[in-house]
Amino acid sequence: MGRKLDLLEIFRTRKQMPGNLIVLSGPSGVGKDTVLRALKGACPGLDQCVTFTTRQPRPGEVPGKDYNFVSAEEFQRMIDDGEFLEYARVHLDSYGTPLASVTKIRETGRDAVLKIDVQGGCTVKEKVADAVLIFVAPPSMEELERRLRSRYTDSEEAITKRLNDARNEIAQIQAYDFLVVNHDVETTVEELRCIVMAERARVLG
Amino acid sequence: MGRKLDLLEIFRTRKQMPGNLIVLSGPSGVGKDTVLRALKGACPGLDQCVTFTTRQPRPGEVPGKDYNFVSAEEFQRMIDDGEFLEYARVHLDSYGTPLASVTKIRETGRDAVLKIDVQGGCTVKEKVADAVLIFVAPPSMEELERRLRSRYTDSEEAITKRLNDARNEIAQIQAYDFLVVNHDVETTVEELRCIVMAERARVLG
Repeated sequence: MGRKLDLLEIFRTRKQMPGNLIVLSGPSGVGKDTVLRALKGACPGLDQCVTFTTRQPRPGEVPGKDYNFVSAEEFQRMIDDGEFLEYARVHLDSYGTPLASVTKIRETGRDAVLKIDVQGGCTVKEKVADAVLIFVAPPSMEELERRLRSRYTDSEEAITKRLNDARNEIAQIQAYDFLVVNHDVETTVEELRCIVMAERARVLG
Repeated sequence: MGRKLDLLEIFRTRKQMPGNLIVLSGPSGVGKDTVLRALKGACPGLDQCVTFTTRQPRPGEVPGKDYNFVSAEEFQRMIDDGEFLEYARVHLDSYGTPLASVTKIRETGRDAVLKIDVQGGCTVKEKVADAVLIFVAPPSMEELERRLRSRYTDSEEAITKRLNDARNEIAQIQAYDFLVVNHDVETTVEELRCIVMAERARVLG
């Protein structure tokens, strides 16, 4: 049976990369980790990109899987050599996504997923025009506050800061391609899966 | 429980229309009708826009459901009054999509679906910038020919013409947003459903 279809093949190979770059952002407490874990199970062909960090490993964290742990000097060298697609300093620690890791995943035809903040997402979009930016929002600020408090891990001051950060991030949704409101994990994962599947069918002009 | 989230509400109301406009195109014989029927079943909130035509009703066709049947004079008046989002003459008959019908569907928050040819799709995109154009392609030209022949309804001449039209349409895929290859109905419908769901989560800048 003939499978050849010259014109269609032309359009498929127009894509610079066989796999997509998916950026997932959303305020602390919205449930990104839970949702991303379930999404990877529900949607084959997704690889989360391992971030480089200067902070110390926490108990149970696996180097090369949870993070790539490097020294501050090595991190600075990677910045100087332009190896990061985006990086950020959070308090005293630095976190960065190396472009090489993203490219490696995309070249195999799998989609690379980054879980980064809105500022990082905007930097990625500037450098990778076909990156797909998804913002996961809470149903309301009150619900976000409730979720943060239910974790029992943050001080009052930390919660206030996280809520302020959330408002600032939500104000930048316009820079994003998709907005998913996380009412419940199952529905959110299904919406995210649909976005990933749809983007695989996108025609690039 | 508070549901108010001012910033989010602002972004939701930025959309000019609550519902989307989905355009489905693809060569004759690719299976658009089968796929679209199944899609409407699998994906609530989709309304196919009823086309106006000057041709005579065929046995079993329900006016106002399958088509709106109008005289050539009335069709011309609708053209003159700019009522059509797009229209086309096929042999001696005319077919047109009225903008009012599309708007009426979208205003209710449902998605309007048009099944039209690529030329019509391009016209729609010029007039409705946020229209979502999906092209359904056959796995190969050989498979398309096999499907056309298995219908036993076309003359040899008609099949040759349809295959030529198909090549011309495929050459214009670049104007489309999404490309779905119809290997089997079930997979195709699921891909289309994902595109429709994803577009509902799109942020408009």
